[in-house]
Amino acid sequence: MSSQRPQVRPHLAQLPGYAPVVPLVERARQAGLQPEDCLKLDANENPYGMHPRVRDALTRALADPHFGSIYPNPNQTELRAALSRYTRLDPSMIVAGSGADELLDLALRALLPAGGSIITSPPSFGMYPFLADINELNLIDVPRGDGFGLPGDALLQAVEESTDEVIVVLTSPNNPTGDLVPRDLLCEVLGRGATVVLDEAYIEFAGVDSSAQDLLSEFPRLVIMRTFSKWAGIAGLRLGYALAHPDLVADLIKIKQPYNVNQAAEVAGIAALEHLAEISGQIDTIRDTRDLLYAVLRDIEVLRPLPSTSNFILVEIDPAIGTGRELHDRLAAVGVFTRTYSNPLLAGHLRISTPRADQLDTLIERLNSVI
Amino acid sequence: MSSQRPQVRPHLAQLPGYAPVVPLVERARQAGLQPEDCLKLDANENPYGMHPRVRDALTRALADPHFGSIYPNPNQTELRAALSRYTRLDPSMIVAGSGADELLDLALRALLPAGGSIITSPPSFGMYPFLADINELNLIDVPRGDGFGLPGDALLQAVEESTDEVIVVLTSPNNPTGDLVPRDLLCEVLGRGATVVLDEAYIEFAGVDSSAQDLLSEFPRLVIMRTFSKWAGIAGLRLGYALAHPDLVADLIKIKQPYNVNQAAEVAGIAALEHLAEISGQIDTIRDTRDLLYAVLRDIEVLRPLPSTSNFILVEIDPAIGTGRELHDRLAAVGVFTRTYSNPLLAGHLRISTPRADQLDTLIERLNSVI
Repeated sequence: MSSQRPQVRPHLAQLPGYAPVVPLVERARQAGLQPEDCLKLDANENPYGMHPRVRDALTRALADPHFGSIYPNPNQTELRAALSRYTRLDPSMIVAGSGADELLDLALRALLPAGGSIITSPPSFGMYPFLADINELNLIDVPRGDGFGLPGDALLQAVEESTDEVIVVLTSPNNPTGDLVPRDLLCEVLGRGATVVLDEAYIEFAGVDSSAQDLLSEFPRLVIMRTFSKWAGIAGLRLGYALAHPDLVADLIKIKQPYNVNQAAEVAGIAALEHLAEISGQIDTIRDTRDLLYAVLRDIEVLRPLPSTSNFILVEIDPAIGTGRELHDRLAAVGVFTRTYSNPLLAGHLRISTPRADQLDTLIERLNSVI
Repeated sequence: MSSQRPQVRPHLAQLPGYAPVVPLVERARQAGLQPEDCLKLDANENPYGMHPRVRDALTRALADPHFGSIYPNPNQTELRAALSRYTRLDPSMIVAGSGADELLDLALRALLPAGGSIITSPPSFGMYPFLADINELNLIDVPRGDGFGLPGDALLQAVEESTDEVIVVLTSPNNPTGDLVPRDLLCEVLGRGATVVLDEAYIEFAGVDSSAQDLLSEFPRLVIMRTFSKWAGIAGLRLGYALAHPDLVADLIKIKQPYNVNQAAEVAGIAALEHLAEISGQIDTIRDTRDLLYAVLRDIEVLRPLPSTSNFILVEIDPAIGTGRELHDRLAAVGVFTRTYSNPLLAGHLRISTPRADQLDTLIERLNSVI
């Protein structure tokens, strides 16, 4: 023993860490602008914010003297009942978490020993390599090729070569490429006995009919992750959920932090599901705006947008006008905050979240001013 | 590979799990009573609920169109600044989490490999054995003896026999015995080079002058856990924090879930610290009520309360009137919800959280009606 400060475990000491988004107020300050004059298009949040009906539900909850001061229900009974009505799956197949992030971490912790592996197809969500690092897992990358389509054969080959200590992590629609996982490919991967964590964080923008949740009954090794952070406008309250085999859900509930879903998230999530029809109107508008944005971007000669089934668009940039990072910085200087990547596969790309319909003209104007 | 559902890792498959409190509405229903006619004295929450000033802050936050819908600040800048003013420690020594539970788990994950150990002195907080189970750690129990005082010599001996892969977890005031860790013992343990996680969840009830935080500069292997769940009346929003060496804090920030503190907790926590003087009035009242309750319990022949520096009292029950579980059940039937334990050391005990001052007579009446 020593009198030095405690050292973290060796595999954690040199991690790059996750690159989270810089808060809006900080980015606005850097740009010398007021936050309300900026377009926050860097984290794929719902640009309309929390729905007024959800806000009303939180206001009502605040009037309850017990709200906030007593521990949340560890079994998430009401929330899981509401999610059951939404997904039409039995509550025994549903567990909620503090964002899908917590459940991704929990599932990997629960299912894989140190030295296990996850198979991913980058470019994809940066949380996967982060969680592999944290959990001492190997990352088996099966990179996407030209046009960023999923490399089906290579993926299947990686599955064939893998053991019980491997989980395939797929994202549908994928972040940042915006494409759905082809259903036949997913079935082939599952058919070979692989455990698949399918991240459907953005599925509501593709349409919930595009979900693979109907495969849960056929393939008990499928685990689906969902979130309220994107469609429901409550990223800041932290609410996600997993859909899986009832026995696995029972295990996850037993080993999760007992009070993992805070009461504000619980109230807001239930309210969002109760007012689904109204929020669906927002989702439709976001999709329409995304399609308008795509059409505009396609007509800009130095930009090549990827078709997207989600609420963002990945844009390839003509090297003549700079790298992704450079265009990102020029946009940031005029108050348009987008997402850039350290991943070399995406050095020439930029991801733009869909703005509000009334912000589209401003986005196009500012974009044109810097290219 | 198989087509069966994915199996959790062997050490997780047979876990007893944590025994969380049963929600108030469910307990009230079981008793055939309305929740407002019951006394919820089972989870050591602030019986006055969320302070009106904290409630006001949340109401104001809800008027901000960005509230709740964008991701929280991963660096917790404002919250850590507020905690810095409260603790008079530099923000670099502070990291917040989704309750102290998350940070306890994070610290153990960060510092101990599978097969490492934690030394605890039961009876204590049930979260420690739970987290040892989850993280594949051995539990080295150094049980408290008669009167439940900390067994100093045995603890020091366990420290002497331990390696770098051992962390001592102490609780001050201890839950459920209510006593502070003697400062000289803590210094001796730290002086032998042990890493100590000191859980000060209840320190505000003992008085923050009883905190060991001044030892952080002398002993870089000390990590202190705190929470807003008890004194600040926001258990349902999930907010805790750790105080530690700046290098360890930097590591924990890098490996924590980036958006671990939800915005409602952030707003409420900052507001609670801004209105500390008003909430301190509640804390004083809770301490006075605890002392009144203690005096009453002492005069009941079949009960032996332990002196407490916290917001609860552990009561030893004369076997002539039944076990802890039996008295717990009789109290529950009349709408008084207390905490009972499966731990054999506490088979003849019951923990009662301090009620509101105006609930004290009802508590005594109902207690007298069942003994």
